[in-house]
Amino acid sequence: MSEAQQAAPSEDVRKIWVGFDLGGTKMMAVVFDEKFEVLGRKRRRTREKNTKEVSLRRLTETIQLALEDAKVDPAGLQGIGAGCPGPLDLKRGVILEAPNLGWKDVPLRDHLSSEFKCPAEICNDVDGGVYGEYVRGAGRGARCVLGVFPGTGIGGGCVYEGRIFHGSRSSCMEVGFLQMATEGPAAGVGPVGTLEGLASRLAISGEAAKAVFRGKAPKLAALAGTDIGSIRSGTLSKAIEGGDTVIEEIVRRGAEQVGRGIGSLVNILAPDIVVLGGGLVEAMPKLYVAEVQKGIKRNVLPSLKDCFQLKVAELGDYSTAIGAAAWVRQKQSSSWVCKPSFVN
Amino acid sequence: MSEAQQAAPSEDVRKIWVGFDLGGTKMMAVVFDEKFEVLGRKRRRTREKNTKEVSLRRLTETIQLALEDAKVDPAGLQGIGAGCPGPLDLKRGVILEAPNLGWKDVPLRDHLSSEFKCPAEICNDVDGGVYGEYVRGAGRGARCVLGVFPGTGIGGGCVYEGRIFHGSRSSCMEVGFLQMATEGPAAGVGPVGTLEGLASRLAISGEAAKAVFRGKAPKLAALAGTDIGSIRSGTLSKAIEGGDTVIEEIVRRGAEQVGRGIGSLVNILAPDIVVLGGGLVEAMPKLYVAEVQKGIKRNVLPSLKDCFQLKVAELGDYSTAIGAAAWVRQKQSSSWVCKPSFVN
Repeated sequence: MSEAQQAAPSEDVRKIWVGFDLGGTKMMAVVFDEKFEVLGRKRRRTREKNTKEVSLRRLTETIQLALEDAKVDPAGLQGIGAGCPGPLDLKRGVILEAPNLGWKDVPLRDHLSSEFKCPAEICNDVDGGVYGEYVRGAGRGARCVLGVFPGTGIGGGCVYEGRIFHGSRSSCMEVGFLQMATEGPAAGVGPVGTLEGLASRLAISGEAAKAVFRGKAPKLAALAGTDIGSIRSGTLSKAIEGGDTVIEEIVRRGAEQVGRGIGSLVNILAPDIVVLGGGLVEAMPKLYVAEVQKGIKRNVLPSLKDCFQLKVAELGDYSTAIGAAAWVRQKQSSSWVCKPSFVN
Repeated sequence: MSEAQQAAPSEDVRKIWVGFDLGGTKMMAVVFDEKFEVLGRKRRRTREKNTKEVSLRRLTETIQLALEDAKVDPAGLQGIGAGCPGPLDLKRGVILEAPNLGWKDVPLRDHLSSEFKCPAEICNDVDGGVYGEYVRGAGRGARCVLGVFPGTGIGGGCVYEGRIFHGSRSSCMEVGFLQMATEGPAAGVGPVGTLEGLASRLAISGEAAKAVFRGKAPKLAALAGTDIGSIRSGTLSKAIEGGDTVIEEIVRRGAEQVGRGIGSLVNILAPDIVVLGGGLVEAMPKLYVAEVQKGIKRNVLPSLKDCFQLKVAELGDYSTAIGAAAWVRQKQSSSWVCKPSFVN
């Protein structure tokens, strides 16, 4: 045990929080100070197909390594927040299922809390990312922030008056499953004509692969061929730069659909700030944002069109870690009145 | 001044709240006790084209008449809540515009507060209705209630963790302006392919009038002719009972679209209860609800399909008055922390 750990906790111990981002391919622990400055971090591959015990141990170690990297007294640890994929039971703090990780019924909150002797919370990873953008990013302090992240799927989240808007089993803001058309492709899962079916990176890659197959996209053919698994956001961007106008058309069409979905959602949620993030936006921000703006204009009500700003996400890979750390802090600090006394 | 008013307010005075529903054709004031039992009421026509002063006086009188009807000591008045149409400025308590009333920039909250010497609040009328259903109706006490009211347009509202979910200028949950199709009719206003364009009572009446014109709906022809202004929800219901199968088909199609819109919204908001109300539902609950269920099933994500219940609104004409009265009460009673201290 280090000297710092042996010392009795005093008022002088620096207060720290840990944010954890549990992804399908990587996990990351970040140590923050009171102002959400990064004091230390550790990123590791998430190994699939381990037993629950081995996976949890790997997770614990990652946090310990991040704390060591931060070179602070662990006695100052105020809380750990973890952003997790898959359906969660927020009340019990359990990951119900994370198919990419092979996890089922993992009581992550209690595990973290007992391992590190501090409060812990879990939240959906996308929600965590939007909360991070609310706390220190593009949506800072806004009354209502809608986050939309077009990637393999299309993720979304909403922070309303300082709280993550969530469903009873955590999952909500399934922006990808807005119904956009009466017919059309499906997203691989779910009904046809959804936003995800029309405009996710997977949908766009599918269209692009067909263009390659037809001989219409020579640059993309050279870069990736017809395997949609190889057509990533960066590949699409390079093909467009290389002169594949058909690919540019496909990406623009997808982005406009995302904009139309956002326009619809603005009519529902009336956010003050819409944060746009994810791989496609990062790979080609200018082209993508312009088309999204066009789509929004098409669908948003005149009375709402001047009520919000569209902004590009600012925190990149750190958004979920910041948001999860802020979320455990928020849960501790506020009196959480969810029902007026006169309602029963 | 009555004896009751002269007496010094004491602990024994019965606590009362007033809910006010300001509609385009009628206004209604209702006096409630602590348990939201109705103690008195007054309903009057809303006269259009009066000056702001005359209209406000009429409104004040309506509340005074309801208080008289209740036969209670007005000294017990704890607050007045008013549900209002049109865009509102909630912070300042001002009706920005109510075209049906010819009102513009009416500071209703301060007017009520100074006339009756008590706290006052205004809210959107549909929001008030959903809050009423949350407080004492079909959505009682649920964590998240989505209300959908297909009528001339399609109104919507959401109560989340005890609060009305609202936009910065009040208007939000514009369920009628969900984008449902890439093409299709408009709602008279706004973009094409919206839920309101496809499935409002006005959209359905338009379809029905065309069927009459084509000679396909003899019963409706006799009841209303081809004037869409005369084809109300009750008329449609009677035509269906009378054997106009084409009209039944039209109504069913509209209801299914509403269900599909609700399915989309469940994917976004993950409510625990969806409250369905409005003229079409009231006129033919069985037929309408069955088709809505069908539409929901088509669009809702498998992971969310067992997370909510669809219920028919219970409070009818009283929902907005109850909700508005409860809203002013809620605003008084809770500490309204909207931003964590660490966000700036």
